[in-house]
Amino acid sequence: MAKRKPVKLGAIIHGVGGNISGWRHPEVPADASVSFSFYKEQAQLAEAGKIDLVFIADGLYITEKSIPHFLNRFEPLTLLSALASVTSRIGLVGTLSTSYSEPFTVARQFGSLDHLSGGRAGWNLVTSPLEGSAKNYGKPEHPTHDERYKIAEEHLEVTRGLWDSWEDDAFVRDKATGVFFDPEKLHRLDHKGEYFSVQGPLNIGRSRQGQPVVFQAGSSESGKNLAAKGADAVFTGHETLEEAKLFYREVKERAVAYGRSEDDIVILPGISPIIGRTFEEAERKYEEIASLVSIENALDYLGRFFEHHDFSQYPLDEPFPDIGDLGSNSFRSGTDKIKQTAKEQGLTLRQVALRSATPRGQFIGTPEHIADLIQQWHEEKGADGFIIHSSLPSGLRDFVELVIPILQERGIYRTEYESDTLRGNLGLKVPVNRYTAEKVQS
Amino acid sequence: MAKRKPVKLGAIIHGVGGNISGWRHPEVPADASVSFSFYKEQAQLAEAGKIDLVFIADGLYITEKSIPHFLNRFEPLTLLSALASVTSRIGLVGTLSTSYSEPFTVARQFGSLDHLSGGRAGWNLVTSPLEGSAKNYGKPEHPTHDERYKIAEEHLEVTRGLWDSWEDDAFVRDKATGVFFDPEKLHRLDHKGEYFSVQGPLNIGRSRQGQPVVFQAGSSESGKNLAAKGADAVFTGHETLEEAKLFYREVKERAVAYGRSEDDIVILPGISPIIGRTFEEAERKYEEIASLVSIENALDYLGRFFEHHDFSQYPLDEPFPDIGDLGSNSFRSGTDKIKQTAKEQGLTLRQVALRSATPRGQFIGTPEHIADLIQQWHEEKGADGFIIHSSLPSGLRDFVELVIPILQERGIYRTEYESDTLRGNLGLKVPVNRYTAEKVQS
Ligand SMILES: Cc1cc2nc3c(=O)[nH]c(=O)nc-3n(C[C@H](O)[C@H](O)[C@H](O)COP(=O)(O)O)c2cc1C
Ligand SMILES: Cc1cc2nc3c(=O)[nH]c(=O)nc-3n(C[C@H](O)[C@H](O)[C@H](O)COP(=O)(O)O)c2cc1C
Repeated sequence: MAKRKPVKLGAIIHGVGGNISGWRHPEVPADASVSFSFYKEQAQLAEAGKIDLVFIADGLYITEKSIPHFLNRFEPLTLLSALASVTSRIGLVGTLSTSYSEPFTVARQFGSLDHLSGGRAGWNLVTSPLEGSAKNYGKPEHPTHDERYKIAEEHLEVTRGLWDSWEDDAFVRDKATGVFFDPEKLHRLDHKGEYFSVQGPLNIGRSRQGQPVVFQAGSSESGKNLAAKGADAVFTGHETLEEAKLFYREVKERAVAYGRSEDDIVILPGISPIIGRTFEEAERKYEEIASLVSIENALDYLGRFFEHHDFSQYPLDEPFPDIGDLGSNSFRSGTDKIKQTAKEQGLTLRQVALRSATPRGQFIGTPEHIADLIQQWHEEKGADGFIIHSSLPSGLRDFVELVIPILQERGIYRTEYESDTLRGNLGLKVPVNRYTAEKVQS
Repeated sequence: MAKRKPVKLGAIIHGVGGNISGWRHPEVPADASVSFSFYKEQAQLAEAGKIDLVFIADGLYITEKSIPHFLNRFEPLTLLSALASVTSRIGLVGTLSTSYSEPFTVARQFGSLDHLSGGRAGWNLVTSPLEGSAKNYGKPEHPTHDERYKIAEEHLEVTRGLWDSWEDDAFVRDKATGVFFDPEKLHRLDHKGEYFSVQGPLNIGRSRQGQPVVFQAGSSESGKNLAAKGADAVFTGHETLEEAKLFYREVKERAVAYGRSEDDIVILPGISPIIGRTFEEAERKYEEIASLVSIENALDYLGRFFEHHDFSQYPLDEPFPDIGDLGSNSFRSGTDKIKQTAKEQGLTLRQVALRSATPRGQFIGTPEHIADLIQQWHEEKGADGFIIHSSLPSGLRDFVELVIPILQERGIYRTEYESDTLRGNLGLKVPVNRYTAEKVQS
């Protein structure tokens, strides 16, 4: 077996941890989701741990039943830009929906972040699961799951086209002659498609990364295809190594079928490690965070995945109810999995709700145990790396201080950044400008 | 006469100075418009001078004839967010067009910047002069001048409504009881208007400023009305004190007619000071920058204001040509003034083009002379303060080091920030949340 590239790591920063009741934990500042000093501290901690990137999730619709720290939180692009000037090496990845944005604005804002940060920007492309988002954007209805992915594909094509408006050496800036740029290296996109018509050119040039890194987060069939075709990285989620391996193989094979190389796309499942010096301590930490969640909160949380369905109408201790197709138009890959697991394992509604609210997964135990699993998933090609999504306020610190040193000792994780761009650290090539490529070929 | 409040000051940072050929000046880094270190240095310099705010202009359409530093420049919100974490007191004002944006996104991004910066965000609301912008946003055509202002008015109403989604004390965050917020203090906007339908609520709460400061930049009749009705500050431009006084009086009177107080709106004309230790030195500096501009560049620059009209077709040394209505649908207040001045002063096309490209104005001379004019315009109510828009690379430094100390000595400019919010420094009230106000009244 060819030697695997080292493990890649990202850290989601959520303000108060991934858990819906995380803000109630005694160690967390309850206003962390709008505290810049908190985000700054977490990003600098992640950078001290040589983590590839921080990751900011997002959403475009709230109701009074939403996750508390979603009600009042920073917008990703502004937050990441502010983090850019207090960090120097770590990648800055933010979520933005193709269903409710304009490619010209998206290309500019991520392009600008890429310049500001010296080549550390990443866009987590999502299609928006929540139907209510349409109401905040004056749209008659939320596009269907299939249509959202069609829009996403065209949006990405246009955005990448705009990013190539200027060839890398277009700006001559000759003070003596007064020539600012070479007009042969300026290109107008003139895109006219089904969903977007965009002329261009973009009013910002390419950065050191060529283009920001594009993440895709959506694991349905359409999600996998979009990722295989056009993304640089995938953020996904799996409960077991078998499931992860299957997903990994599928996406890499599809990427190859699209004429790309396996190395052109990095697959990063999210994990929520719960780390204790002993297994008992880890277990105690899990119980501590799980116990903050009331069953009412857990039912609300579950309902959000299923188009805000009201689960309080069903008996709690009977098998998970038959709710038909519900959920397939929003978080499809997630809701399919919840239904399937409930059925296979014969879970009650109470069990499903509490498990969703405080996921447990395999990554619970001592630092060695977590490191073993990471190594195994990585070696057996369930993952190229992981996005750490901690439920605990101290989770990122525990991971950086206790798990990363073990991975470093085993030689499967960096001890120093290889590059000062996100692309460089993730081992991704700088994409050649499409127009430069054409000239080379002809 | 009641004592005037002290002078307010803003500084436009453009990367390479306000002049179209400023990038050719030997002292300026030619890539300044995408150099974060340059912007950071300028913003910190402005903060050292206790200036109220930095101001970032913007545009949504370029052609190969655009101003060079507009071709490749930062996007305002990302740039200002990055500046937020390397400054602590100065206001951060960015331009964003209501013709090509969604209120939900605008409210979020400025709301987020306001939180990130601890209450220093400002939005310069513009309607976009350039017709080509429509082509970058898939719109069949650029809305007319009148319609753009109708859209702007509704956009601002919605954005302000979203900013009030949460009352100031809505977030209870009681860890013991698990109550995160008070549902009575959460409000859904449910706006259904001519141009926008937005349900809300916004997923970020109010910041220390209550709402970001809203600037308006547009000086036509519609522009003045919009400002008087709904803006906190106006960015305008005048050649003479008489003109400035007329504008000032009109806008303040209209504000009062809309039920506001004169102090609720701050009027800040832009000036481009050219400062020398002697008048001769100032003159030399002007010539130095003016001489970098070729007549071809100047004609292109002029053309941009008139819907990219090709002025090279006219004789250069004959009276400015009759071009009818051209320009009135884009930069109306600006193009009206150009035509009027050309007629009144009998200028040739060459003179009009060169003057537009390198404006001269009255603010040229020794530091005392500039300070005298500032004091006069301020005392005689031509302005509440100024936006410094320097054509010279050293312009902001000269202003901070040579002019500000004189204003301070005369007691008409602060020696320390009064507040750590932009609103506080500008002397503007924190707007009471509309729903809180309703409760108080009833
Ligand atoms: C691991 C993962 C992370 C996601 N993160 C976000 C997010 O931050 N914001 C968002 O709107 N959607 C997010 N999504 C949802 C997707 O954008 C998508 O809308 C939804 O999952 C449905 O697509 P799918 O069925 O292909 O998974 C995420 C999905 C996955 C699988
Ligand atoms: C002092 C001043 C500054 C302006 N700054 C900008 C800007 O940065 N970006 C922009 O798109 N338009 C800007 N504008 C243009 C206005 O947004 C507006 O579209 C144009 O001036 C037409 O409106 P008016 O006729 O009311 O002035 C500015 C206008 C003025 C007067």
